Amino acid sequence: LRRGFPEVVLCEGKTEEQIVKIMQKLAETEENALATRADEDIYQAVKEELPEIEYNEAAKTLVLQQTDLAEEGSILVISAGTSDIPVAEEAYETARIMGNSVERLYDVGVAGIHRLLENQKQLRQARVVIVAAGMEGALASVVGGLVDKPVIGVPTSVGYGASFEGVASLLGMLNSCSAGVGVVNIDNGFGAAYLASSINKME
Amino acid sequence: LRRGFPEVVLCEGKTEEQIVKIMQKLAETEENALATRADEDIYQAVKEELPEIEYNEAAKTLVLQQTDLAEEGSILVISAGTSDIPVAEEAYETARIMGNSVERLYDVGVAGIHRLLENQKQLRQARVVIVAAGMEGALASVVGGLVDKPVIGVPTSVGYGASFEGVASLLGMLNSCSAGVGVVNIDNGFGAAYLASSINKME
Amino acid sequence: LRRGFPEVVLCEGKTEEQIVKIMQKLAETEENALATRADEDIYQAVKEELPEIEYNEAAKTLVLQQTDLAEEGSILVISAGTSDIPVAEEAYETARIMGNSVERLYDVGVAGIHRLLENQKQLRQARVVIVAAGMEGALASVVGGLVDKPVIGVPTSVGYGASFEGVASLLGMLNSCSAGVGVVNIDNGFGAAYLASSINKME
Amino acid sequence: LRRGFPEVVLCEGKTEEQIVKIMQKLAETEENALATRADEDIYQAVKEELPEIEYNEAAKTLVLQQTDLAEEGSILVISAGTSDIPVAEEAYETARIMGNSVERLYDVGVAGIHRLLENQKQLRQARVVIVAAGMEGALASVVGGLVDKPVIGVPTSVGYGASFEGVASLLGMLNSCSAGVGVVNIDNGFGAAYLASSINKME
Amino acid sequence: LRRGFPEVVLCEGKTEEQIVKIMQKLAETEENALATRADEDIYQAVKEELPEIEYNEAAKTLVLQQTDLAEEGSILVISAGTSDIPVAEEAYETARIMGNSVERLYDVGVAGIHRLLENQKQLRQARVVIVAAGMEGALASVVGGLVDKPVIGVPTSVGYGASFEGVASLLGMLNSCSAGVGVVNIDNGFGAAYLASSINKME
Amino acid sequence: LRRGFPEVVLCEGKTEEQIVKIMQKLAETEENALATRADEDIYQAVKEELPEIEYNEAAKTLVLQQTDLAEEGSILVISAGTSDIPVAEEAYETARIMGNSVERLYDVGVAGIHRLLENQKQLRQARVVIVAAGMEGALASVVGGLVDKPVIGVPTSVGYGASFEGVASLLGMLNSCSAGVGVVNIDNGFGAAYLASSINKME
Amino acid sequence: LRRGFPEVVLCEGKTEEQIVKIMQKLAETEENALATRADEDIYQAVKEELPEIEYNEAAKTLVLQQTDLAEEGSILVISAGTSDIPVAEEAYETARIMGNSVERLYDVGVAGIHRLLENQKQLRQARVVIVAAGMEGALASVVGGLVDKPVIGVPTSVGYGASFEGVASLLGMLNSCSAGVGVVNIDNGFGAAYLASSINKME
Amino acid sequence: LRRGFPEVVLCEGKTEEQIVKIMQKLAETEENALATRADEDIYQAVKEELPEIEYNEAAKTLVLQQTDLAEEGSILVISAGTSDIPVAEEAYETARIMGNSVERLYDVGVAGIHRLLENQKQLRQARVVIVAAGMEGALASVVGGLVDKPVIGVPTSVGYGASFEGVASLLGMLNSCSAGVGVVNIDNGFGAAYLASSINKME
Ligand SMILES: Nc1ncnc2c1ncn2[C@@H]1O[C@H](COP(=O)(O)O)[C@@H](O)[C@H]1O
Ligand SMILES: Nc1ncnc2c1ncn2[C@@H]1O[C@H](COP(=O)(O)O)[C@@H](O)[C@H]1O
Ligand SMILES: Nc1ncnc2c1ncn2[C@@H]1O[C@H](COP(=O)(O)O)[C@@H](O)[C@H]1O
Ligand SMILES: Nc1ncnc2c1ncn2[C@@H]1O[C@H](COP(=O)(O)O)[C@@H](O)[C@H]1O
Ligand SMILES: [Mg+2]
Ligand SMILES: [Mg+2]
Ligand SMILES: [Mg+2]
Ligand SMILES: [Mg+2]
Ligand SMILES: [Mg+2]
Ligand SMILES: [Mg+2]
Ligand SMILES: [Mg+2]
Ligand SMILES: [Mg+2]
Repeated sequence: LRRGFPEVVLCEGKTEEQIVKIMQKLAETEENALATRADEDIYQAVKEELPEIEYNEAAKTLVLQQTDLAEEGSILVISAGTSDIPVAEEAYETARIMGNSVERLYDVGVAGIHRLLENQKQLRQARVVIVAAGMEGALASVVGGLVDKPVIGVPTSVGYGASFEGVASLLGMLNSCSAGVGVVNIDNGFGAAYLASSINKME
Repeated sequence: LRRGFPEVVLCEGKTEEQIVKIMQKLAETEENALATRADEDIYQAVKEELPEIEYNEAAKTLVLQQTDLAEEGSILVISAGTSDIPVAEEAYETARIMGNSVERLYDVGVAGIHRLLENQKQLRQARVVIVAAGMEGALASVVGGLVDKPVIGVPTSVGYGASFEGVASLLGMLNSCSAGVGVVNIDNGFGAAYLASSINKME
Repeated sequence: LRRGFPEVVLCEGKTEEQIVKIMQKLAETEENALATRADEDIYQAVKEELPEIEYNEAAKTLVLQQTDLAEEGSILVISAGTSDIPVAEEAYETARIMGNSVERLYDVGVAGIHRLLENQKQLRQARVVIVAAGMEGALASVVGGLVDKPVIGVPTSVGYGASFEGVASLLGMLNSCSAGVGVVNIDNGFGAAYLASSINKME
Repeated sequence: LRRGFPEVVLCEGKTEEQIVKIMQKLAETEENALATRADEDIYQAVKEELPEIEYNEAAKTLVLQQTDLAEEGSILVISAGTSDIPVAEEAYETARIMGNSVERLYDVGVAGIHRLLENQKQLRQARVVIVAAGMEGALASVVGGLVDKPVIGVPTSVGYGASFEGVASLLGMLNSCSAGVGVVNIDNGFGAAYLASSINKME
Repeated sequence: LRRGFPEVVLCEGKTEEQIVKIMQKLAETEENALATRADEDIYQAVKEELPEIEYNEAAKTLVLQQTDLAEEGSILVISAGTSDIPVAEEAYETARIMGNSVERLYDVGVAGIHRLLENQKQLRQARVVIVAAGMEGALASVVGGLVDKPVIGVPTSVGYGASFEGVASLLGMLNSCSAGVGVVNIDNGFGAAYLASSINKME
Repeated sequence: LRRGFPEVVLCEGKTEEQIVKIMQKLAETEENALATRADEDIYQAVKEELPEIEYNEAAKTLVLQQTDLAEEGSILVISAGTSDIPVAEEAYETARIMGNSVERLYDVGVAGIHRLLENQKQLRQARVVIVAAGMEGALASVVGGLVDKPVIGVPTSVGYGASFEGVASLLGMLNSCSAGVGVVNIDNGFGAAYLASSINKME
Repeated sequence: LRRGFPEVVLCEGKTEEQIVKIMQKLAETEENALATRADEDIYQAVKEELPEIEYNEAAKTLVLQQTDLAEEGSILVISAGTSDIPVAEEAYETARIMGNSVERLYDVGVAGIHRLLENQKQLRQARVVIVAAGMEGALASVVGGLVDKPVIGVPTSVGYGASFEGVASLLGMLNSCSAGVGVVNIDNGFGAAYLASSINKME
Repeated sequence: LRRGFPEVVLCEGKTEEQIVKIMQKLAETEENALATRADEDIYQAVKEELPEIEYNEAAKTLVLQQTDLAEEGSILVISAGTSDIPVAEEAYETARIMGNSVERLYDVGVAGIHRLLENQKQLRQARVVIVAAGMEGALASVVGGLVDKPVIGVPTSVGYGASFEGVASLLGMLNSCSAGVGVVNIDNGFGAAYLASSINKME
């Protein structure tokens, strides 16, 4: 059905043995594969069997690339702070292995809005923009106001106290005064990229 | 800036007089215009001055069409139940006046999943799908599982008790087990259509 | 009073020693017994004294079967995803030791609704259906729409972010647009099976 | 499909005209019909056209009985206080028109537990028990502890302050220390009866 | 104690007669007085007795100015949208009658950030800035990032759905990634101005 | 001021060294002392210096009794389940060291209401009743209905899922349909006993 | 059972006719009676039949005094602000008709703590203190710190925004840093007085 | 831009290596630097490279003082209980390194209000007051009522049960009946001091 589309494994709630087995099976196909929420230990266990596996430590993703990547269109992944980078990187790796051309623009949160404004060219060149932001998540609204293209907001659980593990950012993005921001679950970099990819590939 | 793009007026929180004045001003431009959250009284007041105004009673929208509509691409607006239709219609009218070709498929909620399954052809033909659903909002997940195109979920405040004015549906859509559903605010048919339009018009 | 009915021990909040003692006492009766929420260590401690004890690792249940099981009627336990299996298995073991005939149908979540639709025969054959689902819990609504028999929904804490440890699924099931789904507490496989058993045994 | 089964109309969110039309259409069939959440005005409008319509003022239900009622099995509807009676009566009318034999036991809340204890005979005679209770909803737990048959708890929005429109009762019932209480949405007398009916009719 | 300081009356929860009487008593002193949350009817009733009373319709404030106003320092009141103006105006009137020099900058929300950036001169000239914003409340973070002076955020209840009557904006401001934003209660324009005044008057 | 009244130390958030020092100082006075939330390690450290210290393992309290206890009046501490005993015991130890005569009645939750009913004599003999209950906390309502004396409800965090760490029980007790139940914080056995003591000692 | 104890009627959710009938029946006994949550219309309807009925407009209570009141002990009812007076008065009337001697001390909130401190004599003379306070409810903690007698906190729904209809005050009182404050439901002046009465009458 | 202003590093979410590197870089400038949320291990690691680093164990701050501190104006940091001291100390260290003269007044919570009242001189001498309080956070209201200067409330996560990790205190401060208390995020001593500093330095 979804030819050429990578298989995706969510490591959370699976044992190391289960994950190694699944990855080995996927290695036998000719397709690319992605595993998310994989910690260092899982990486080591998989690497033992599949030395070609690539690990993105920040994203906590395993990538098994077995065919060329299409690098179509252009998705821009933005993060507000350095602590949001893990979620942004999960989005980056997901978008990349799904065959998209992906750019990154990190640490451009609204506390220092000039950094974002100086990088408007990157905003203009993207077809779809993913915004990963915790705390108050204001960056999604600001980006949504600057561009007229689809914006996917992914609230992160970064923050403490009244951030309520990402709820403040989630509500911020859902109530964005900039029309047309689509929101996914807290810390769901994968889901943001999946949606962005289906948009980016439209003809 | 956004040439050919309709001006949008949110009637909530404005007086009849203010709305009539704004609409008259917009009538002087050559552009199309949309007003949302307009009740019957507002409609009558505007109609007095602008007899050509069109009112969608369910959607509570006023449409002032002054140029031809492009009817590009294809957006499908789905509703779970009859009570979700007002939100679905707000999305329909917004998408239409923004120049999109829009189809509707109403009353296909998961309590009788066969109705949805029988209409899979419409799902296949759309470029973007908007799902308006209240109560538990399960329809967004089911639709997201059936298609590989962008799905915009708009939770509605339909329900009572533990639906908490749309929160149950909102959470349902954010936690959709089908990857890649983008969610907008409760009852925000306008926002869903705005995002869908920006996606539908991609080339 | 409740003759032939198994004694049930909730291990959470008890020490290993307490559990071993209780199980030994129960072993002296002629009745069957069930212990829930028992981790590996508890299993080992009990096994030392009662080698005939059976452990279901996924369900985290200990079963002490001392009389024949009735295998009456027919309860079907459905799970949405693999991560919901522990809760489903707790329901399975509880229903089984209470003397019911129990079937299982796992991994039929709505992201791939075809799997469920292909197994409608099993749905038709059951007298009562238990649905264990986390994330948005949409499976309970879909199953409730497909059958006209009692459905017991047990939301699971599977998910992250805005799933709020099972709340999203709980609200989804309580607001099910399919009439007549009875809901129990999050992760309460035991309670779901207890209720299902009292229904299944009606004459 | 569901032969002999009454059609159910939810009046909430429908206009008087729509409801009258639907009821007239249903009157043309040979089947029984039920309308819930019907206020006095709706009743008067329907009565004009269908003088045979029966109105239960407390339940806010319209019943159009066109065939004999089966009066099968035995469902007992219990209410904690007088304010819970509307929800209990919605359950009563729904269960009755669905062909069940239904008994009522009202005002037996736990503040005066003796009233409940004095009526244990009625509890013993029922096949299924529905408990409608607001405030803290403790009645469901007490009833669940007294009987070994299916108990359906329907929390009501009766109360104020920290009852949060039924949430306190809902949580109380979900956390019932008596195993096997199935819960439906706040104020959902209809849903409780629907589930109770499917249980009561088991053979 | 607080010499020259205006008396403040909160009309909410008081009868027209009570308010008229209080205002008449205050008129007999030589001091200025402010009444907040006063609707049109209250204004008319007070005006009958005290024709010199000034009513700010948006702010819903009555001002009884009996001594010259000091117009000290400089407070800037910013609003995100037009719907936030009532709260902003309550802050404006409060700050003014407390003897501050007050400027206003309205409708500079982040959906169109250029309007704010074009008015940075006003930001630079103020000693204290009050930001009134509903929906996601992102404006407080952006302003907090642009200036190094005290910023008082007052979330407004503007919005719908997941704005939860101002909670989304409140959380947004509390989690501001710009350090040093002090927050007051939802819609509390009075409290924001009171705090701003105590800051503005520091020497 | 509060002569003869024991000093109370809350161990949570203090180091072992700090606690030992405080207890040594208290040992030098002629007064009794109580320390709550003391784990095994703290006990061992204190015991080293003060061998006469008494540890209640369930209650996690340290008692330093240096004067005779008055054993006035009569407080009855009731628990719903075995998991509620730690909170009940904290109440027991606090009440005892404060000079009250204290009785205990454990494991009389409403799932088996007969146990409570069989012990009504104890209820009748007490001057004040403390009820410690988790899950749905229904026991407080039932006890409140059986007696006409002050009842102090202390919700416990016992439960899982929708018990939300004691919130379900807290709401249950606050909404008790039995008039006159006073409620303290979740797991606050100390506070319940403190209040009960001030009541019990009234003349 | 509860001889000499007044019958109490909760008017909320009853029709005028029902209330009049109940009051007439109670008038036929020799006992005192109290009706709470009675608006002006209910008062007028009851007065027509029972001219001797006394109405407390603030408390919204009807009192039917048919025997002498005992005026035992001493309960002090304190309110933080004027808006809390209705709840305080409901407590006052309830305590009075239950045969207690009751004093009132209103408008002594912590924003002007001197008023409370100047009235410490009244605090010292009471046997039990009821504190009615909305907004942040801090008064209960301050009073609890000043006296060593039972304090009953009744949070009121006074406030707006983040007071969440009394939740802020409720949480404040439950977390009081002064040990031994018993809390009742939001706006439950009746319940506070009922508990205070059972305490005040202890011998 | 912000000359002489210390650089601030938030250690949470950074590795030891990253922090050491950042601190070394900052040591090369002539400026002062502050690191917050630094545990003992981080301290040891930094100290190895920068022996002159100062660690405040309670505050969990690292201070690198390289220029003289201005000690301007006067900020008073108040804490309610001993458990609130870590947050108060974070505020203290932040305010100090930002060049303010800072005083401390700890353990003056409202359970023993006399301690606060005896120290009113310190309140009078400060230009700005920071109040760190957990549990019900009533101290902010009491202080706000005693002084006419800016008060910054910082709720702490101290407490248990219904304190909900600081939410009770947060709500208490937001609803303060004393006008003009500005609130920052739970446990955000840094943010409170940052705001207080910008106020204290006004001329
Ligand atoms: N139904 C709606 N829901 C949310 N936002 C809307 C809606 N209708 C219009 N808007 C937004 O509100 C803006 C107009 O606001 P206003 O200038 O106050 O009339 C539009 O440009 C839209 O971005
Ligand atoms: N009181 C009620 N609460 C919840 N659901 C109801 C109620 N009454 C009817 N329904 C459901 O609503 C359906 C009818 O909806 P409708 O077709 O919109 O009238 C029925 O088949 C029931 O499943
Ligand atoms: N378990 C407890 N829960 C709540 N408060 C307590 C508890 N134990 C002691 N306290 C209170 O904490 C005070 C002692 O706190 P501290 O001085 O920090 O040890 C006592 O006077 C009591 O008021
Ligand atoms: N304890 C704290 N709480 C909140 N924000 C802080 C805290 N400490 C530092 N910050 C902020 O975080 C910024 C540094 O973040 P980073 O660049 O990630 O180290 C500082 O400029 C402050 O604005
Ligand atoms: Mg945009
Ligand atoms: Mg899909
Ligand atoms: Mg069904
Ligand atoms: Mg039972
Ligand atoms: Mg700033
Ligand atoms: Mg009682
Ligand atoms: Mg006290
Ligand atoms: Mg003040």
